[in-house]
Amino acid sequence: MSQASPAPRPPVSENLLRRMDAWWRAANYLSVGQIYLLANPLLREPLQLAHVKPRLLGHWGTTPGLNFLYTHLNRIINERDLELLFLAGPGHGGPAVVANTWLEGTYSETWPNVPQDEEGMAALFKQFSFPGGIPSHVAPQTPGSIHEGGELGYALSHAYGAAFDNPDLIVACVIGDGEAETGPLATAWHSNKFLNPVTDGAVLPILHLNGYKIAGPTVLARIGDDELASLMRGYGYEPVFVEGDDPAVMHALMASAFDQVFDDIRRIQRAAREEGETARPRWPMIVLRTPKGWTGPKTVDGLKTEGSWRSHQVPFGNMDNPEHLALLESWMRSYRPEELFDAHGRLLPEIAALSPHGERRMSANPHSNGGGRVRELRVPPFERHAVDVPAPGLVNAEATRVMGAFLREVMRVNLPSRNFRIFGPDETASNRWSDVFELTSRTWLAQMLPEDVQLARDGRVMEILSEHTCQGWLEGYLLTGRHGFMSCYEAFIHIIDSMFNQHAKWLKVIREIPWRRPLPSLNYLLTSHVWRQDHNGFSHQDPGFIDYAVNKKADTVRVYLPPDANTLLVVTDHVMRTWNRINIIVAGKQPQAQWLDMEAAIRHCAHGIGIWRWASNDEGGEPDVVMACAGDVPTLETIAAVDLLRTWLPDLKVRVVNVVDLMTLEPADRHPHGLSDADFNSLFTTNRPVIFAHHSYPTLIHKLTYKRANHANIHVHGFIEEGTTTTPFDMTVLNRLDRYHLCEAVIDHVEGLSQRAAHVRQTLHDKLAEHRRYVDTYGDDMPEIRNWRWSGGRGDAQPEHG
Amino acid sequence: MSQASPAPRPPVSENLLRRMDAWWRAANYLSVGQIYLLANPLLREPLQLAHVKPRLLGHWGTTPGLNFLYTHLNRIINERDLELLFLAGPGHGGPAVVANTWLEGTYSETWPNVPQDEEGMAALFKQFSFPGGIPSHVAPQTPGSIHEGGELGYALSHAYGAAFDNPDLIVACVIGDGEAETGPLATAWHSNKFLNPVTDGAVLPILHLNGYKIAGPTVLARIGDDELASLMRGYGYEPVFVEGDDPAVMHALMASAFDQVFDDIRRIQRAAREEGETARPRWPMIVLRTPKGWTGPKTVDGLKTEGSWRSHQVPFGNMDNPEHLALLESWMRSYRPEELFDAHGRLLPEIAALSPHGERRMSANPHSNGGGRVRELRVPPFERHAVDVPAPGLVNAEATRVMGAFLREVMRVNLPSRNFRIFGPDETASNRWSDVFELTSRTWLAQMLPEDVQLARDGRVMEILSEHTCQGWLEGYLLTGRHGFMSCYEAFIHIIDSMFNQHAKWLKVIREIPWRRPLPSLNYLLTSHVWRQDHNGFSHQDPGFIDYAVNKKADTVRVYLPPDANTLLVVTDHVMRTWNRINIIVAGKQPQAQWLDMEAAIRHCAHGIGIWRWASNDEGGEPDVVMACAGDVPTLETIAAVDLLRTWLPDLKVRVVNVVDLMTLEPADRHPHGLSDADFNSLFTTNRPVIFAHHSYPTLIHKLTYKRANHANIHVHGFIEEGTTTTPFDMTVLNRLDRYHLCEAVIDHVEGLSQRAAHVRQTLHDKLAEHRRYVDTYGDDMPEIRNWRWSGGRGDAQPEHG
Repeated sequence: MSQASPAPRPPVSENLLRRMDAWWRAANYLSVGQIYLLANPLLREPLQLAHVKPRLLGHWGTTPGLNFLYTHLNRIINERDLELLFLAGPGHGGPAVVANTWLEGTYSETWPNVPQDEEGMAALFKQFSFPGGIPSHVAPQTPGSIHEGGELGYALSHAYGAAFDNPDLIVACVIGDGEAETGPLATAWHSNKFLNPVTDGAVLPILHLNGYKIAGPTVLARIGDDELASLMRGYGYEPVFVEGDDPAVMHALMASAFDQVFDDIRRIQRAAREEGETARPRWPMIVLRTPKGWTGPKTVDGLKTEGSWRSHQVPFGNMDNPEHLALLESWMRSYRPEELFDAHGRLLPEIAALSPHGERRMSANPHSNGGGRVRELRVPPFERHAVDVPAPGLVNAEATRVMGAFLREVMRVNLPSRNFRIFGPDETASNRWSDVFELTSRTWLAQMLPEDVQLARDGRVMEILSEHTCQGWLEGYLLTGRHGFMSCYEAFIHIIDSMFNQHAKWLKVIREIPWRRPLPSLNYLLTSHVWRQDHNGFSHQDPGFIDYAVNKKADTVRVYLPPDANTLLVVTDHVMRTWNRINIIVAGKQPQAQWLDMEAAIRHCAHGIGIWRWASNDEGGEPDVVMACAGDVPTLETIAAVDLLRTWLPDLKVRVVNVVDLMTLEPADRHPHGLSDADFNSLFTTNRPVIFAHHSYPTLIHKLTYKRANHANIHVHGFIEEGTTTTPFDMTVLNRLDRYHLCEAVIDHVEGLSQRAAHVRQTLHDKLAEHRRYVDTYGDDMPEIRNWRWSGGRGDAQPEHG
Repeated sequence: MSQASPAPRPPVSENLLRRMDAWWRAANYLSVGQIYLLANPLLREPLQLAHVKPRLLGHWGTTPGLNFLYTHLNRIINERDLELLFLAGPGHGGPAVVANTWLEGTYSETWPNVPQDEEGMAALFKQFSFPGGIPSHVAPQTPGSIHEGGELGYALSHAYGAAFDNPDLIVACVIGDGEAETGPLATAWHSNKFLNPVTDGAVLPILHLNGYKIAGPTVLARIGDDELASLMRGYGYEPVFVEGDDPAVMHALMASAFDQVFDDIRRIQRAAREEGETARPRWPMIVLRTPKGWTGPKTVDGLKTEGSWRSHQVPFGNMDNPEHLALLESWMRSYRPEELFDAHGRLLPEIAALSPHGERRMSANPHSNGGGRVRELRVPPFERHAVDVPAPGLVNAEATRVMGAFLREVMRVNLPSRNFRIFGPDETASNRWSDVFELTSRTWLAQMLPEDVQLARDGRVMEILSEHTCQGWLEGYLLTGRHGFMSCYEAFIHIIDSMFNQHAKWLKVIREIPWRRPLPSLNYLLTSHVWRQDHNGFSHQDPGFIDYAVNKKADTVRVYLPPDANTLLVVTDHVMRTWNRINIIVAGKQPQAQWLDMEAAIRHCAHGIGIWRWASNDEGGEPDVVMACAGDVPTLETIAAVDLLRTWLPDLKVRVVNVVDLMTLEPADRHPHGLSDADFNSLFTTNRPVIFAHHSYPTLIHKLTYKRANHANIHVHGFIEEGTTTTPFDMTVLNRLDRYHLCEAVIDHVEGLSQRAAHVRQTLHDKLAEHRRYVDTYGDDMPEIRNWRWSGGRGDAQPEHG
């Protein structure tokens, strides 16, 4: 049933459909072979147990449908000379994509150990889901793929990310096996309100309803065509249904449906690009209903298998059962391999002729190999955005606003190449990147009102209240070789923890693949962070994303905690020039004391860590205490504490160490940025107490430094999950990260100080009590806190009992 | 516009509507007062700067809409004597819910320091988003709430979770301010295919389209009514639209729409409950379009504010501007407080009479206070499911399958009270809990086919391929006092990291609230874990959820790593009896060696950690090495290593320590389960090497033990992010957690052993090389690995060069 009016095209010839069916059978044959066979790939001899893998792994259910779609998309490519990218949402159908890329020749080009002949077919079969071989899912190893198929939910947002700013590209995105039930996928349909038909490519969603997920029916397969069509129209698409199980009938239906939807896409693009149409188009999408495990065994051991969840993985195992062995052989022979492959295991020429050529092959689409068509980011000088810092701690600035001005210039110089976008869940302005709106707007293709501001069809700021969609778009954009930056409230970045995970894994694996080009880094600004979410309260207070992220492989993840605006600029410049990384920058958006002028900031960031001599008074000798800090608020509190200590205890030798690049703390053999033990010891000493004020959970610092000589003397203050609605300074007090508690920690841990500085301890307690009273009365921090300025350790503040 | 035919009811009287408008104005007045005022709550004197808070915090935009809905729901409750629960998805509209609960009297009953008079009103205003006061969002402090409003996305799944098994309850769930764009919300609409109109209550989704989120329009506000109606019908609802901005008109429209939808709900329930209707009903839902910041200032400083994103938070600040002060006063006076409150600040009786009474007040609904109507879980004896373990290491069992049989019995004894459900993303069978299907089925209200198995309208196994929805349902179910268990693939539980976060925060806060009753614990089984995802490959390999979870407050989170089936049974029994916790159990589903009989398992789990004397040969003295293990696969590899060591190096004194309860490792002052230093030292010694085989990332053990005396001697083997598609044993080899690498670590770290055991080291290298060859050839583990059995340290295996 096709619900939109068919295009007036001549039907595809019977001869072509017959050859397409042969291609499909070949792909299905190769798929079954990958799942089951170790040897005898062409079934030249009767199948024996020894030909079968000892462990049977993989997913058959979705595979024939993917093969069917791939075959039909190839026809479209050939007839229309289109540039298509194929995304397999149900990427556990790895055998399908691998099979087609082998038939197209790309597989053997990228993996010469798997040639297009009988020997190569044997290798193809053996390697699948085999130790030292390839994963059972579509993966970085699969040519043409930008999408790991292991975790469901992100296919459609990846597809849109790939289509942005690629006007000639059409991304065919298959969604199936229950992926449509995931939250990220369910909202990604709305991406069509953010796709500009003039300057972006197109996405063709194909909802492959084979009825079942792992062990039960899928929701969308059981709501009826009317409700499903209504859902798709509600999402803004025009569905075309292709339903059935007779291959001959289905080939004709599928061909006709594809002709129709690709006509529609061309019509929409022509209207927008040539005829000035500005109404949001109703893009086509396909609903393909075929049996799960189509063309597989109808029944196994008397139980329905084709068209059932029983086909989801390996339809039958236990090959010691002779009936199963026979079933496998008859199933594979049902594809008539002798009609498909010649004596050398090569696809027959008339079938092979169906393959698109060169880069038109979906498996060789240059977009799919990140750097293939990379439009390298131009990064203008950041120094011109420097905040003037005549002396440390006297000037206030909003660090992320300064960064926003820099990003505006990055946007400006890259506008012509359309290779840079900014992403965030409705928080670009809140996070103080508003300067970019001087140049560009939020992308918006839905309805507009006269009063709207900063919305445009060709905007380059991508905002939807879905961290998942932002992340998915950005990943798709990066995976196809473009550049971006994402900002997010620190607490809510955990929403995409699992996506971060999968992207980090992708980056780890592509490094091990010789033909994979490097990818532009995934860059985050996390702001509105824990220490300045006093007003929104406990639900908005969580600094744990960096704790989470550092578990990933050292060559992938970087964490930066710039203490002020100039260091943030340096770090921002740096991360935009990196490849194959995930860079996480945490920086506040509120006005705060600035420490380093640009020259000092560049020097400090080059090392990633260093002694701040202007704040220290150990004059190059051994200090009594090291005051370490990582993060803007911890740095502020540390410097304020040092100011008090130096005023009240002028004999105390204090060294201040600031950490910008958190990975410097790891041992050098663990992380490329890690300090050698000698360097670490020269900063932190081997025996003096270290009072470490840290942005996130204290245990993170212990985890990074537990192998260091002085570890037992490191006392970390950080977020100890004491959150509530209060004032900014009170947040630090509740978590004992404030200047007074830091001073007290010094008194506790410096030998002999406890006695000598008893009066200071009393003052600290008085200060804390005074703070408590003031906050409870006025709901704000005391003026001496709000207006604090670094006095250089010669402050007026004197201990009341001093 | 109302798109379904209106119910034949008389219109609501003008007099009642007039009084409802007064209630609404009172709630709006109190909302603005909470955001702005410190004093002068009744505006008895002209407003002065001193009456205004120094920091203006909160969200106005969504608030008048919430007040409007609350007012109208109260009429429905009164007229129909219904049991309603109110969920504010845009929970940053905290002022609204707090205002209404105060008007209803519940607020003053739960917080006696905020009485229903002028003094109380002043307290109500001051405390809002004020240090020591209450959060700006709907929160645990808010009577009647089960839903923290800080992070958007979970309102609708929470609503359904609350409605399950509460047939008399109707949950009115407001979705607004962009929440509908989030992934979790976008898929939660499909929950209606899992709600049984006979035995469950009803959910009334109210999509509150006020046009904007933080800084721009929302998608659903800009797709037109036709597309939106289509979307809602596609989700399976019948939308009723209520649109406008004239309060008088809107009161009549809203009243009529509510009459209609509550008639529809009653009709649907009657048809299902009394007339045997089994077709899935098309439940009603409401689309309410009102201006953002409705009734607030039309413009501020010349810019449109009502009906704009500028109303999202505080519509104007900078009260030093006299125009702003005047604007605030005229805005507040526009609600005519003198017509609403008497001289003592009490709501006038004719308005107060609109409040429902007692538990009919949404703010006093017993369901909303977890234990209010708790139907306590009955836990049958677990011992009868014990695996017979005649001696350690000889019998194999699938631990989670044994657990499944126990859960079936839990299900059985609780069936009559309908207070227990099982949740999971399509993985109940895969995770080996299939025995529960002997008793109950998957809940399924969508289409059924004759071939379907284990699907039923009244099933108690909740499966949708959305971890978010499973988690949201379960949270809603727990928050209303019922019990559940969720199973999930270990790697994919990160999908709900952020929901876990928010639930942990909720649990922390309710402990500090005297009137909040304890909640049944949130219990997870994480299985299909990292060490047995060899076949699915890298994308399925991530053990980091427990690393992530332990950052939460110690009184909330528990992590259990039972090494075998009997310990899993004991732990399962335990966690189901706890309250206010999040219990995470990680256990494998594959056949694996069993160690402890039931008596030993009970004893071991009672301590959570202990020496396994049967595996040790230090006979109570000081060992040469401590072999510690946490997790089933690490335990297996440790015991296998000990078997080799005791065979090859019989003089070596080995102590085996197994950890079930990970939190025993934390210091006693950090976690209630933490061992004292004395106890820790008695297990781990203070100076002997500890080779610790751990389930997740090694750094987690360092993080937990860094304060322990022997920390520098603890050498942890765990997941070091080396994943791929391979064999089970090879996964451990790649990550150096296997028996051979553990043996080598012993040789490396026991003083003097390196020389003495050089031959053993050579054997280990040979074994590893042999393993490599075998796996690469046969794609499976060597038989000596697959068939390994504990020999009691007297094994036949001899070092080839021994």
